[in-house]
Formats: sequence, C-alpha cells, structure tokens
Amino acid sequence: MKPGMLMVVSGPAGVGKGTLVKQLMSQRERVVLSVSATTRMPRPGETDGTQYWFKDRQEFESMIRSNQLLEWVEYCGNYYGTPVGHVRSCIAEGKVVVLEIEVEGALSIRKQFPDSVLVFVLPPDLAELEERLRGRGTEAPEVIGRRLERAAEEFRFLPHYDYYVINDEIDAASDVMARIVDTEQLRISRNPDIVDRFLT
Amino acid sequence: MKPGMLMVVSGPAGVGKGTLVKQLMSQRERVVLSVSATTRMPRPGETDGTQYWFKDRQEFESMIRSNQLLEWVEYCGNYYGTPVGHVRSCIAEGKVVVLEIEVEGALSIRKQFPDSVLVFVLPPDLAELEERLRGRGTEAPEVIGRRLERAAEEFRFLPHYDYYVINDEIDAASDVMARIVDTEQLRISRNPDIVDRFLT
Repeated sequence: MKPGMLMVVSGPAGVGKGTLVKQLMSQRERVVLSVSATTRMPRPGETDGTQYWFKDRQEFESMIRSNQLLEWVEYCGNYYGTPVGHVRSCIAEGKVVVLEIEVEGALSIRKQFPDSVLVFVLPPDLAELEERLRGRGTEAPEVIGRRLERAAEEFRFLPHYDYYVINDEIDAASDVMARIVDTEQLRISRNPDIVDRFLT
Repeated sequence: MKPGMLMVVSGPAGVGKGTLVKQLMSQRERVVLSVSATTRMPRPGETDGTQYWFKDRQEFESMIRSNQLLEWVEYCGNYYGTPVGHVRSCIAEGKVVVLEIEVEGALSIRKQFPDSVLVFVLPPDLAELEERLRGRGTEAPEVIGRRLERAAEEFRFLPHYDYYVINDEIDAASDVMARIVDTEQLRISRNPDIVDRFLT
C-alpha cells in the first residue's frame, strides 16, 4: 500500500486552487479533499459538505472550544477551519488528504504533521491574478482590492512551503501536482515497510 | 532557468543503476553524469572518461592528497572517488549532476551538499538481485557472494536516503527517476528567483 499523507495547498484567492485540486482528484483516486468549515456565506451553487461545511459563528466557536478543529483562522471577517475528524483516519488508510487552506493555517498544520507536504499555487504573474479576480465577477471592487493586498501578505510565506506550482494552464499544473504526490510517496521516510523488506 | 542540483544514486551491484541513469539522461537533457575515478580494471567495452576515469593506485592517492576528490572510498580492494572539478560548475549552470556512488560516499556528499537528493535503487527482491549478478557473467562465484554480503550492508543505509526507486522494469523505473528530478526542481528552497518575483 502506498503511504497516506497530508498535502496542504495554499495560494491567493483567484489563483484557481479549487479547480486544480478537483482536477488532481480526477487524476489520482487516492487523493481526497478535506472539506473545511466556514462561517462565510455560500456562493451560488455551493452546497453544504461539498465546498465547505457552512456554520454560523456560534456553531463554529463551539467547534473551536471542543477541539474539533485542526486549525482555524479568521479571514476577511469569516472563520475558516479544518475539522480533525476524517483527516487522521484517511491518512491511516493510505489516502492523500488535501487541505486547501491559507498560509497561517498551513504553518500550524506543519507543526502538527511535520511530514505534510506544503504546496503554494502561484499565478503566472500579479497582473494575471488581478485579471482573474475581476473575471470571476462575484466580488465588489473593494473586495478585489482587499484580496490583492492579502495576496501580497500571503506571498511572504512562500519560503515556508515545499513546492510551488504555477497555474498557467490547468492541465499542465494538475500534472505537476500529480507528480508531486507520486514523488512524495516514494520518500523512504514515508515507507518503513520498504526499509524492513531489505533489512533482513 | 531551472535550478541546478546534485543527485546521488546508490544501490547494490547488479541492480542496474548504470542503465537506469543512462536512460534518465536520454529522457532529460539537463541530467549529466559525473564520471568517477577508480583503480579497478576496465571491464570489456569500458573506456577511460566514459564509465570511469581509470587510474593506478599511485595516481589516485595523489588526487586524494591534493584534494581533487569530493569523496573517495576503498571498496572490494579498489579506490573509487568523485573528482570535484566539474560538479560545482555544472550545478551553477543549472544541470542535474548525477553521482553514482556507494553508501558511505553518499553520506559524505550529503554533508558537503545538504540540498543534494539521495536516491536508492532497489531490486524487486533479494532473489532477483542474486539472479542478476549471476546473469551478468563477469564475476567469479566468490565475488558474487561478496557483492551480496555488501548489498546487505548497503541496505542498512536506506533510512538516510530521500527516495527509493524499484528497478523492476527499466522504462518505468527511469520514468520514476525523471519525475523525482522534475519534482525536486520545483522545491521553493531551490528557486529563490520565484520567491523574489512575488515579493514585490
């Protein structure tokens, strides 16, 4: 059995993390998405338990108090967090659990899972990122401005990540992600059974 | 430009490291082989400067004394070592320099190049390894016995390596090596220019 692992995927809003992870899951059936909890409102088409578990602030704060979250953060006025529930059991089953979270959460995950793989999804350049945010058409101009400022803050965390993936063309970027998964699963530190097999 | 790096490839005699590295070089033109110096006799078909630089003991010991070797080792009665010459300049040019060396040399390289990638090539199992050593037909039975004992010693170093590659089918194994190269070149620690581009 290939080893289970945790892959953290971060990147600025508008860079296309969600689409990329969805494509990766269609290429590698071992890859599963950890669904986050959030207090932000669902966008059109989003359903509870698919993109997010949608909670009100009271529910979310109750999850914090009862240690049901691996990490959580307040960002642009909303809570986001990772329910600990299935993450550990999926890893034990040999799955590659993807957490799509922002930078502070990523560093917190790294502390709890030192073997996790941290991937930062980048736009080809900053102009392209702004273009994509405007093109999405779901946000007011001042929200776009705030997201760009936030992106600049997030890039400062790049040196803490393991790999970068430039999301220029989705198929190419998804292939790169798949290759990172495949390669990381060949790490000797993740495969004590291989070492045992040859240490007779 | 993609980042240069050093890749150390080890594995027991008979596992097919040489063929694997040759195939990898045909798949990725950035990959170059660092030719080792040795005092062992050339096998039929081997030429000086291609498989090895063939030296007598006096010449080799002179290279040791004048610090022309990154690492060296005496193994089965012969010296093997890595001339430092082109290694550093190739890395600076963005090449992936492959060193095909044994386990003690690999650990010594890791100390001098902490960013180097250590790959251990494994046979599908031990019976297959013995089979391949016999099939090569160039060694006396007692040499084969010694090589198998040595293989058992080498496997003890597995936990110090980054990745394993099982050389069952050459094309598949070479693809895996190529993927390790591609993935390692996406490490943020190897790409300070990417970080600079987004930290404006």
